Amino acid sequence: MAPLITLTTDFGLSDGDVSVTKGVIKGIAPEAELIDVTHLIPPQNIAYAAVVLERTVPYFPPGTIHMCVVDPGVGTARRGMAAQIGAQFYVGPDNGTLTRVLAYAEAHGWPVAGVQLDQPAYWRAEVSSIFHGRDIFAPVCAHLAKGVPLAALGAPLADPVRLPLRAPQRTATGWRGEIIFTDHFGNLTTNLRAAHLADLGPVGVRLAGAEIRGLARTFGDRAPGELTALINHVGELEVSEINGHAQKRLGARIGDPIDVFQLG
Amino acid sequence: MAPLITLTTDFGLSDGDVSVTKGVIKGIAPEAELIDVTHLIPPQNIAYAAVVLERTVPYFPPGTIHMCVVDPGVGTARRGMAAQIGAQFYVGPDNGTLTRVLAYAEAHGWPVAGVQLDQPAYWRAEVSSIFHGRDIFAPVCAHLAKGVPLAALGAPLADPVRLPLRAPQRTATGWRGEIIFTDHFGNLTTNLRAAHLADLGPVGVRLAGAEIRGLARTFGDRAPGELTALINHVGELEVSEINGHAQKRLGARIGDPIDVFQLG
Amino acid sequence: MAPLITLTTDFGLSDGDVSVTKGVIKGIAPEAELIDVTHLIPPQNIAYAAVVLERTVPYFPPGTIHMCVVDPGVGTARRGMAAQIGAQFYVGPDNGTLTRVLAYAEAHGWPVAGVQLDQPAYWRAEVSSIFHGRDIFAPVCAHLAKGVPLAALGAPLADPVRLPLRAPQRTATGWRGEIIFTDHFGNLTTNLRAAHLADLGPVGVRLAGAEIRGLARTFGDRAPGELTALINHVGELEVSEINGHAQKRLGARIGDPIDVFQLG
Repeated sequence: MAPLITLTTDFGLSDGDVSVTKGVIKGIAPEAELIDVTHLIPPQNIAYAAVVLERTVPYFPPGTIHMCVVDPGVGTARRGMAAQIGAQFYVGPDNGTLTRVLAYAEAHGWPVAGVQLDQPAYWRAEVSSIFHGRDIFAPVCAHLAKGVPLAALGAPLADPVRLPLRAPQRTATGWRGEIIFTDHFGNLTTNLRAAHLADLGPVGVRLAGAEIRGLARTFGDRAPGELTALINHVGELEVSEINGHAQKRLGARIGDPIDVFQLG
Repeated sequence: MAPLITLTTDFGLSDGDVSVTKGVIKGIAPEAELIDVTHLIPPQNIAYAAVVLERTVPYFPPGTIHMCVVDPGVGTARRGMAAQIGAQFYVGPDNGTLTRVLAYAEAHGWPVAGVQLDQPAYWRAEVSSIFHGRDIFAPVCAHLAKGVPLAALGAPLADPVRLPLRAPQRTATGWRGEIIFTDHFGNLTTNLRAAHLADLGPVGVRLAGAEIRGLARTFGDRAPGELTALINHVGELEVSEINGHAQKRLGARIGDPIDVFQLG
Repeated sequence: MAPLITLTTDFGLSDGDVSVTKGVIKGIAPEAELIDVTHLIPPQNIAYAAVVLERTVPYFPPGTIHMCVVDPGVGTARRGMAAQIGAQFYVGPDNGTLTRVLAYAEAHGWPVAGVQLDQPAYWRAEVSSIFHGRDIFAPVCAHLAKGVPLAALGAPLADPVRLPLRAPQRTATGWRGEIIFTDHFGNLTTNLRAAHLADLGPVGVRLAGAEIRGLARTFGDRAPGELTALINHVGELEVSEINGHAQKRLGARIGDPIDVFQLG
């Protein structure tokens, strides 16, 4: 089976920089197969990349290598990193991108091992100060794909950078959480999960001045234009406008509070 | 030859959901090769997806499997479907997406066979109510790629949902058709085809208050900025602005009428 | 090793035309691997495509075939072309797209050989007048990938079309160059290279009414919001706004002058 490498970046799709990292990988590991996760992470938005990784990594087969490069600190003292997380691998800057995948791994009992990339033998001969995706992370992915063991890539790194994650808080009649992501359809996803709601019975949801009574099972259970709350495909409470764009309609932003409450 | 799977969705490119379907496919059928058709179908726009499929399917090799997921009815009573159309395959919701490919197949004498997806053995173990692309259609594509016969995936489905398609109407001096698609360049394509124009001799075109006299052979035959009509690469009458954007210039919309008429 | 084909076009990502060229390639050369460079070249912008090719081609392995189709002259007398440039190949219209790669090849001593595509045996049986990407260039790429020699594809073409490139000019205290490209992050890249600055000592940069004193080594050396000049990953002088968008901030355009000058 050909090794699988995914790519998650904020490089965009207009200027060919993504393809340069692919060219470098294929030059070292021609048998590697490449899958784009997204290259439209908002520029420098590490927290957004962390959500995307959490939503995608669990669905890839064992052995997959995930290159994730959202790297405002490129060329500074920030470390480069490779890690084994369960049966999969991560390569990229050590800047918090991995925060949610690490939390997911810990919650699911996946073993984790990390190294700091300090072995230039596995990099391009010339390393620029502004494009480590091309010069360090792509070649490291390719060498991993060719079977180089993680431990050969650098010294152990036991304390990867973590972004602060806020847990939902108990309220008098339910939970207060926050919006963590907006998807392509404008659906607002939150840090409230099915488990938070399990004991509440019928609930309502309040955010951005709007109130939704009850949870739907799927979009088609509600009328077009209706604001709807449901448990989404990754187990999160999600707010949608049917055939619309909840984020634009509500003007809601990542970090905004959302309340679930027991219906009277 | 590795089996080829194409992907057509309205998932967008920003949040990694497309890659999740690819991860699921590669976990089941590592030898499958994946080609994106587009993930920018306007959200929930089944009719748009139907045109895209008609424009692309005929150019893929025998055995190609086309996954097309524009699925506002996910998790409701709408059926999931797989079909063999000529020597190629389709997997997705049974909601009309296939309308134009079926019409194309019938016009070209391609045999068609469909099944309703009712065999959970070929799905992910856990099926969400809102992401059948990940949980049903991707695994079904992968199993087809591995050689599972169509008939094993479900009971025969002989009456796939079809969108209403309007045929062009004869007028006193030619034909009245309609705009069916706008491409990336703003070119307006129509349901008028070369065959409709064959007997008319020299023609003019009217739409959105504009009139174009004569057909061009290619873009470079006209000056930049000029409104131009020609027979496009899939045999349709198409209206373009040379090096411009006809759709924005004319404010024309899908469904708007277009007339061709014999030149006096 | 499977032959690698890259694709650079202005076809966009919404209507499936890119995938059609891939379907055609895979029908002829199923073993070919496809990598997108970009499909968001601004429509008809040959000069932009020329920069993208120069930034990407050097990072691909020997034997890579680059299909580049930005083709306002499709179907007119403009020639189709295939070329070997060093150990890699190019296929597309002969309209200047290759200008910068040819200059790069000449500067690096790479041998160059070109042919005019005049052998319909290597094209689709039916050739439209408006989509040579599908009907000529894709099949030619596929045949190259299958081992057809360049010379079989057509008669020698020794005078490919070249865009005029302006070289930087010496000024009293430095150099005047121009902006040649804007990347996804809004960074402005120029035709001034590290070699131009080598003998000047400490320099300042002026463009669009702004002045920047000194060069940074990388983005993280400056504060967010600061205008910054540095030598980028392909050796060009580049102007950036840290975590911002220099092009929007300065309103600068491709072709605008930029001055570097010795500091006091």
